[in-house]
Amino acid sequence: MSEIPVVRDVLDDNAAGAAANRARFAAAGVYVMNLMSGPGAGKTTLMERTAVACRGRLRIAVVAGDIETRRDADRIARHGVPVEQVNTGGACHMDARMLEGALSRIDLASLDALIIENVGNLVCPAEFDLGEHDKVMILSVTEGADKPAKYPLMFSEARLMVLGKTDLLPYVDFDPHAAIADARTLNPDLEVIRLSSRTGEGIEDWISWIERRRASRVGGTKD
Amino acid sequence: MSEIPVVRDVLDDNAAGAAANRARFAAAGVYVMNLMSGPGAGKTTLMERTAVACRGRLRIAVVAGDIETRRDADRIARHGVPVEQVNTGGACHMDARMLEGALSRIDLASLDALIIENVGNLVCPAEFDLGEHDKVMILSVTEGADKPAKYPLMFSEARLMVLGKTDLLPYVDFDPHAAIADARTLNPDLEVIRLSSRTGEGIEDWISWIERRRASRVGGTKD
Repeated sequence: MSEIPVVRDVLDDNAAGAAANRARFAAAGVYVMNLMSGPGAGKTTLMERTAVACRGRLRIAVVAGDIETRRDADRIARHGVPVEQVNTGGACHMDARMLEGALSRIDLASLDALIIENVGNLVCPAEFDLGEHDKVMILSVTEGADKPAKYPLMFSEARLMVLGKTDLLPYVDFDPHAAIADARTLNPDLEVIRLSSRTGEGIEDWISWIERRRASRVGGTKD
Repeated sequence: MSEIPVVRDVLDDNAAGAAANRARFAAAGVYVMNLMSGPGAGKTTLMERTAVACRGRLRIAVVAGDIETRRDADRIARHGVPVEQVNTGGACHMDARMLEGALSRIDLASLDALIIENVGNLVCPAEFDLGEHDKVMILSVTEGADKPAKYPLMFSEARLMVLGKTDLLPYVDFDPHAAIADARTLNPDLEVIRLSSRTGEGIEDWISWIERRRASRVGGTKD
């Protein structure tokens, strides 16, 4: 049994798909983020808050990835942003090819930013380039401060770590300084935003971060 | 590119490894549980509480699976139970073959129960039989009640769902009845224990459950 060559084929094919997506994003002038976290860290709730906070400021759309169901897409669509659901059919991550159908149904050229909400998994999604500009991850404070050392690829690949559910800090044993220090041991340039979708803490920082990254990678917003 | 035959080879090889493990567990008369959850749901903390609660009652050992680090093993070993760490070297789950080294270093015949703490991942571990008697999963109440429908294989494969971190129920939007009903739509026989490692709620139910399953699958405890 030789598993390695096949893994390489899969990643080579993904790289080709990612390059195609990247060209598509560049042609449309849209900034694209790949948003990752473990299950239940709050990706979808953050997308709901983001949809509201972006009104009149950034035109966004969301691609929601899940193994099954279109619950996330339905939740986000209520807030008036275009959403496409991608079901991975059992796969534990999104790959670049899975996005093709969803991307063809979105008017990318009308958008400032596209956020791809990956499958809830702190391991596998980090291995698959989707053609995005930035990988962003959420670590919820309920998950424990030991996660960077235990899931190193995710923390190494991310440009930004959102420290989520900060409203629960009084009720859990979580040392934000230790978690941030551990993550920066792996990734010294990692940016961090403390955020609570419930209280609104950090939401303005989050939207400003997206605007700044869009300006840096793509240019100013569209009028 | 044909990915499917290789996936089948991997699962066939795992099935052979699981059969070998199963024979080893039967020969030793040890009950074995495969404990799974998303990252940060509280598996290791539950193992610490279990080590204390089992004293004078059940002789247990733990195999702690992680992509990297031996932090979990160190945390559990402090409580005086034998622990072996398995690092999966990047893999998002444990497979049956990865257990071989750890199993050879544990005196299985001296144990009543062995708990295998899998990698924190709500997707991939559910696909790999380790030769265990029961699969058990933890859903933390901070993860949201929508998880069964979104991660169906895990909830279908488990015999028991531990609803964890119940001490945080007052601070999160989580409907235990909805989560349990959703999980039982997938798996009508699923047993449920509500548990908080912090307050101790459910710990007695949890230890009794292990004793009962051991008696049912292996026989009475060893004297």
